[in-house]
Amino acid sequence: MPSCGWLLLALSLAALTGNTFGAVAYAQTERNCSLSPPYLPSTAVNTTLRLQDLRELMLPLNISAYIIPGTDAHLSEYIAPRDARMAFMTGFTGSAGTAVVTQTKAALWTDSRYWVQAERQMDCNWELEKDVSISSVAEWLMSEVPPGGKIGFDSFLFSLKTQEDYSLNLDSSNRSLKSVPVNLVDEVWKERPPVPPDNLTRLPDRVIQRSWQMKVEHIRNQIRDNPYEPTALLLSALDETAWLFNLRGNDIRYNPFFYSYTLLTMDEIWLFLHTDRVTDELRVYLNASCNGLLCVQLKSYDTVRDHLKKYVAQSGVKVWIGTEYTNYALYEIITPEEKLMTSSYSPVLTTKAVKDETEQRILRDAHVRDAVAVIQLLMWLEKAVPEGKETELTAAEYVNKCRGKQKDSRGPSFETISASGPNAALAHYSPTEGTSRKLTVNEMYLVDSGGQYLDGTTDITRTVHWGAPTAMQKEAFTRVLMGNIEISRTIFPSGTRGVNMEMLGRRALWEVGLNYGHGTGHGVGNYFGVHEWPVGFQSNNIPFRTGMFTSIEPGYYKENDFGIRIEDVAVIVPVHTKYGHNYVTFDTVSLVPYDRKLIDITLLSSEQLQWLNKYYKTIRMLVGPELDKQGLQEEKDWMLKHTESFVESGSSASVCSSSLTLVALAVALLHNII
Amino acid sequence: MPSCGWLLLALSLAALTGNTFGAVAYAQTERNCSLSPPYLPSTAVNTTLRLQDLRELMLPLNISAYIIPGTDAHLSEYIAPRDARMAFMTGFTGSAGTAVVTQTKAALWTDSRYWVQAERQMDCNWELEKDVSISSVAEWLMSEVPPGGKIGFDSFLFSLKTQEDYSLNLDSSNRSLKSVPVNLVDEVWKERPPVPPDNLTRLPDRVIQRSWQMKVEHIRNQIRDNPYEPTALLLSALDETAWLFNLRGNDIRYNPFFYSYTLLTMDEIWLFLHTDRVTDELRVYLNASCNGLLCVQLKSYDTVRDHLKKYVAQSGVKVWIGTEYTNYALYEIITPEEKLMTSSYSPVLTTKAVKDETEQRILRDAHVRDAVAVIQLLMWLEKAVPEGKETELTAAEYVNKCRGKQKDSRGPSFETISASGPNAALAHYSPTEGTSRKLTVNEMYLVDSGGQYLDGTTDITRTVHWGAPTAMQKEAFTRVLMGNIEISRTIFPSGTRGVNMEMLGRRALWEVGLNYGHGTGHGVGNYFGVHEWPVGFQSNNIPFRTGMFTSIEPGYYKENDFGIRIEDVAVIVPVHTKYGHNYVTFDTVSLVPYDRKLIDITLLSSEQLQWLNKYYKTIRMLVGPELDKQGLQEEKDWMLKHTESFVESGSSASVCSSSLTLVALAVALLHNII
Repeated sequence: MPSCGWLLLALSLAALTGNTFGAVAYAQTERNCSLSPPYLPSTAVNTTLRLQDLRELMLPLNISAYIIPGTDAHLSEYIAPRDARMAFMTGFTGSAGTAVVTQTKAALWTDSRYWVQAERQMDCNWELEKDVSISSVAEWLMSEVPPGGKIGFDSFLFSLKTQEDYSLNLDSSNRSLKSVPVNLVDEVWKERPPVPPDNLTRLPDRVIQRSWQMKVEHIRNQIRDNPYEPTALLLSALDETAWLFNLRGNDIRYNPFFYSYTLLTMDEIWLFLHTDRVTDELRVYLNASCNGLLCVQLKSYDTVRDHLKKYVAQSGVKVWIGTEYTNYALYEIITPEEKLMTSSYSPVLTTKAVKDETEQRILRDAHVRDAVAVIQLLMWLEKAVPEGKETELTAAEYVNKCRGKQKDSRGPSFETISASGPNAALAHYSPTEGTSRKLTVNEMYLVDSGGQYLDGTTDITRTVHWGAPTAMQKEAFTRVLMGNIEISRTIFPSGTRGVNMEMLGRRALWEVGLNYGHGTGHGVGNYFGVHEWPVGFQSNNIPFRTGMFTSIEPGYYKENDFGIRIEDVAVIVPVHTKYGHNYVTFDTVSLVPYDRKLIDITLLSSEQLQWLNKYYKTIRMLVGPELDKQGLQEEKDWMLKHTESFVESGSSASVCSSSLTLVALAVALLHNII
Repeated sequence: MPSCGWLLLALSLAALTGNTFGAVAYAQTERNCSLSPPYLPSTAVNTTLRLQDLRELMLPLNISAYIIPGTDAHLSEYIAPRDARMAFMTGFTGSAGTAVVTQTKAALWTDSRYWVQAERQMDCNWELEKDVSISSVAEWLMSEVPPGGKIGFDSFLFSLKTQEDYSLNLDSSNRSLKSVPVNLVDEVWKERPPVPPDNLTRLPDRVIQRSWQMKVEHIRNQIRDNPYEPTALLLSALDETAWLFNLRGNDIRYNPFFYSYTLLTMDEIWLFLHTDRVTDELRVYLNASCNGLLCVQLKSYDTVRDHLKKYVAQSGVKVWIGTEYTNYALYEIITPEEKLMTSSYSPVLTTKAVKDETEQRILRDAHVRDAVAVIQLLMWLEKAVPEGKETELTAAEYVNKCRGKQKDSRGPSFETISASGPNAALAHYSPTEGTSRKLTVNEMYLVDSGGQYLDGTTDITRTVHWGAPTAMQKEAFTRVLMGNIEISRTIFPSGTRGVNMEMLGRRALWEVGLNYGHGTGHGVGNYFGVHEWPVGFQSNNIPFRTGMFTSIEPGYYKENDFGIRIEDVAVIVPVHTKYGHNYVTFDTVSLVPYDRKLIDITLLSSEQLQWLNKYYKTIRMLVGPELDKQGLQEEKDWMLKHTESFVESGSSASVCSSSLTLVALAVALLHNII
């Protein structure tokens, strides 16, 4: 599943097209605020009362505007329903946006992916703003807020960078930000979903190499060894605490996380969470009844700021935070400056990025079972599509069902992208009842899906054609595949940055003037979020080292026509070189064959073809026995058929045959002569 | 000629080896301050008196230490003798370093390339410090300067970043920087070389497409169009002013620059320089006697700060500066903050980076004549080396002489790197009487040289072997060549950053565990410094666009054994692609064949071989007529011999012959049977 980079493509496509696809499909279903009375579709949410309530709360606080971001206090990529404050206030449920409310106006900023959706879901209390930069929001604020006015915000929902960007943009305008301690939307939101009651669960021993005590000790060593001499580490990202204690939760869809912070010092461990969800068994597991070096002191989730404040008030302390994801509410109380130590990522995230032997083994295992589910989908589609009854939605349901049957399955790792024809060219498309296309032999089909398993998270994309692809589709697919292979087979020094190699994924496309508008890959791990930071090919990812897992996912998208993406997960492994040491390469752990019909092997170099044949041998070796074990003979036959070796077009085989022809010819000639 | 990146290699090599090469060669010639009395070689400079003078000047200023950087007020890569303040104070003449003097101590920081040289040139007044980071200097300062103490510096010799780094490192230590208005070394330096008396020269019309008036207008449009609404542009880098006015000077060796600043507003042009060097003819050329929009007002070089101060004091002004090379003295007077606008590079540097049609044409022309000189060198060496009388130094002299005979020659563009055997593995090596090796058929030889011509600057490296190279040498050379070709032949979207493609220069080496420790290329232009910013493959270079020239120079260095570098200059040109628009590629303008003996064509892909054969055809087509014109028949024969087409090892030719063998065999068999 492609991450952040998509936005670029989305915005540029929208600029080119005016988003005609959406406009055509939804013309009748969008609001029209210029009519009197305004026209509102049935999907629009009436926000008059909640806005009135919010504005009343704003008055005594002396704030002229209130900013409502779409994220949570952990700056999570996915959020829980109770954190969907922007959606509650505006009616708009898209995954990205910012809302601002003044006493007379209300505006939502979201990118081109969501403009149609916003016009369907918002009532006429809301303006839709289309330039999503913070400078655009700031400009709007400067026109609506009088000089000297204050702009309220919840500092738990701003990252350091967001806060800095607003400050910079409002600077010298005589308007300023004012942190409001209580979230005003929560005050207005009578039926805000509660924290889910689910208890936390600890991972079974079979999926763990390092106990939480070992991890704590390891991280403490890194704190001790840091030359800036921090005394404590604050963990804010939800996967940091989950990793440290080998715990998982269920608070956010597709993400096995639970609301939490951790403050780790050299002699104490404070775990902030909803303590009522910690069972007696877990308390024992965490040594929660003592105060020693390896005792976890459970503190209420809501007290993190107070406790941190008290810790910081002591003399001689210095708190280490990761700046990429710590919220401003916790950052701002770490003063004076010498009590703060920052790095982009905490040592927990950088340690977690390198999987230990067990994690590597079980993550590979999870991919073998995951391959079975995807093979089941592809085989079924090959048979079912020509019958004309399947759609994007039924295909998505099918693959989810197949994954659900695999051992240790914990559901999908994100909403399946099941996209046919032109839908596959849209950024972040997932089918709905309104948009789901029928699958046919006349369209290319892209399926990007993944599973959560107790032992690992998967993410794989295959693009197929059940009829006769055009020459251009075949060429584009082959060049995307060449990009995937070129990255996968590359040997490079350990410590090379992904961003400096990702052009290998694009080069074969560039040769004919094609490209793609998203990133080339993101980290993946052991039962965490499907986009696992900080590994990957983007400029803010950390350098690659042995034991890191990343997706590799070049693509190509032809607007209003088709979309191609070939995504595999790979692990960095050491490689022996003739002269050097400390060189590594990728070992692909996703194990599903590519659509043979779409591969033009004459375009492949002999190295690429060798890689492909070797990969197919690996699929046979690893997935074959699993299919046998699960008694899936038809799937095994399908897999064997689709992993047959390719023969190089200019290889010795063909040379031999042409030589033999010549020999035959010579013999024939001789006969005539004689 | 490789740029900055070298340092990394130098430092890591030194860490590995303890710089044994230098130690062995110079053991007798270094100072020994632990003896009593200390041993000083004849090359050491007595600095006692000058230190005494400097310390006296420091006393009334109330500064505990004084920092003496090795750069000039324009943060130039090469400096003029009158700016060699660090060398004057310390005796040490290396190109990189920082000196610090307190009342009781004096220390020099320089990197491993120069440790031996420093031990030869400094007397025992000076400590040698080997960690060149600013934090190391700051640490030393904190140990030598009492709390509350002030550290003096000349703010003209600090970049913004240097100032910030010192501030950051001294922060919270209760020691602070204090800018001293007069340079104290200049006060002590009785025989400081004067500004050279040479008049400035204007470029002849035949090498110019845009008059200075057109350039001024073009830059003013960019000032006008900038959304931050600057009112003036300050030019600090010496090539900025030289480019804007189509002028050149002679103040710095190898660099056709003259001391200058420019302040360009929408209605005035202030040119700060040594006005006595401007002839009457130039005053007419510059419209120096009026005050209008296109009149250049000549101001004395030393008044730039005062004039800038006065300009900034006006209301409603905002000065645009390039942060990468503006000195702190000028930066600090642009206050308050809203009067300052920064970008990494000024619009002059980004405009200059893209050569116009004339500049492209003449720069290509210069490379044709330059190729003649390098071909003369290589041909001569082939004959002369086996006779055993030539050395690194005589080879360097020979190529300089050959270039000097070419039309419009203005001397070398940097000190020729002429390096045989192990010397070629050393970073930034140039031969001296003490180090120059005899050239023999038993060693590889690397020559990195370039010329200044009125129409262009050149920079080319060839590596050759006159005897029998080892298999490893041949493989390494071929893989370096593959890197050069892979970059050169790559098609990519205009606007791609060099840093994201430069791994193509390393990939063939990585495959067998080899690599190099310097950058992959730098900008080159029309009669400017040989490292022309901001074009190139480093992270602080700007994205590539049509009309930019860059060197491409992968290498490989085997310590104490040999060094390989293959460097060509190439220009970005548009390329037609099957499906896309706005794609570009490189067109190599250096035109000298590579050593055939060192190429293992079985390693090359067929695309690489095709590129090579096409390149050789281009050399024949472009350099052939020039050799004819210059009446150099022997050189032409040599060139033709060295640019013969390579035949692909697995090509149809070889297949045919094996087929024919089979046919012959078949015929023979038939005869026996019959």
